[in-house]
Amino acid sequence: MNAFRHGSLDVATFVELHQLYGRQSHLIDEGDARAWATTFTADGEFISPSYPAPVAGTAALTDFADAFFADAAAAGEARRHVITNIAIDRVGDDELAVRLYLQIVATRKGEQSRLVRLTTTADRVVREGGQWRVACRTVRRDDN
Amino acid sequence: MNAFRHGSLDVATFVELHQLYGRQSHLIDEGDARAWATTFTADGEFISPSYPAPVAGTAALTDFADAFFADAAAAGEARRHVITNIAIDRVGDDELAVRLYLQIVATRKGEQSRLVRLTTTADRVVREGGQWRVACRTVRRDDN
Amino acid sequence: MNAFRHGSLDVATFVELHQLYGRQSHLIDEGDARAWATTFTADGEFISPSYPAPVAGTAALTDFADAFFADAAAAGEARRHVITNIAIDRVGDDELAVRLYLQIVATRKGEQSRLVRLTTTADRVVREGGQWRVACRTVRRDDN
Repeated sequence: MNAFRHGSLDVATFVELHQLYGRQSHLIDEGDARAWATTFTADGEFISPSYPAPVAGTAALTDFADAFFADAAAAGEARRHVITNIAIDRVGDDELAVRLYLQIVATRKGEQSRLVRLTTTADRVVREGGQWRVACRTVRRDDN
Repeated sequence: MNAFRHGSLDVATFVELHQLYGRQSHLIDEGDARAWATTFTADGEFISPSYPAPVAGTAALTDFADAFFADAAAAGEARRHVITNIAIDRVGDDELAVRLYLQIVATRKGEQSRLVRLTTTADRVVREGGQWRVACRTVRRDDN
Repeated sequence: MNAFRHGSLDVATFVELHQLYGRQSHLIDEGDARAWATTFTADGEFISPSYPAPVAGTAALTDFADAFFADAAAAGEARRHVITNIAIDRVGDDELAVRLYLQIVATRKGEQSRLVRLTTTADRVVREGGQWRVACRTVRRDDN
């Protein structure tokens, strides 16, 4: 039972992580694919049952984010990554384990917004050159 | 690409801003219109495509919040402003730029809650007399 | 009007509270009932119109969380507690009043996720042995 390991989390790291997650969705949802990709490490991995294979590395992550935004535009809708329930555990000086809830909300012109799915995300986050970035994201879908 | 400007955000400001946003929705959603209005500066502006014209100044903002709550009551439902994905950028010593996602969730007695819409909000937040307040809020609707 | 009492909230307490709420939902939603129960004080109370009577004390809270998870499993769905709009007010050195929005989102295999209800939660949170825990949670349902 490690419900209370957060005693070891320093304030600066907490703030940096919440800023990272606060910002990350805006980047992919607004089509700033390259900036989104650089919230991951250079060899960062994205693993999700929504996609046929893991995506790894800045170039592939950029293409992935570009495709997400283009697909939404082609469907005539805005798609948003809504992040809540951020729980941060320290693994080491420069490594954190983060769990969060991620809802996809989609909206077509003239229609009500709709909740498409809720996923549970587990991130391994590491500090490189003083900057926290996602080294590996593993997405689980509740509908899967 | 300014995905990582948050290095310059001090911890106290981060906490004050998250407390401001944590609290603001409760005020308008519970009908405390005047308190909601004072989360804006005295000449604060609210600009949204949901309303015919910008709303500016404490008195007008109070009326606006009163009307929001009265409209919900007249429709026999509770309406909630659900805030997520807060991203804070420092613009100057006493000025911040904040982006966030704002979902409107409505509930009628005896019915399931429903997501009405997701909006993207861009706030200019300033510090006056040691207190951070919203100077200008610009709402964009994904369905618009 | 106490919209701005947060001036008295220290940073460490803010971080501990956000970590507490970040973590709490994962515990009950993943079936770790005992760990969820220990986010409450030993005699902690949970009061909700969704349930016939208040639940009090670690053993009863554990059973309550076990039943929540078992009910979801029996219904063939995952149920998530999505927490937003955390507003923290200091009541005393070792006591806080917290309000938040709590949405229940449910997902069946192969189906879209759906928002079941939005509730407003008021927590009395106390510090015991250096650890913040929920002493009393009062849930209000917007559909009630």
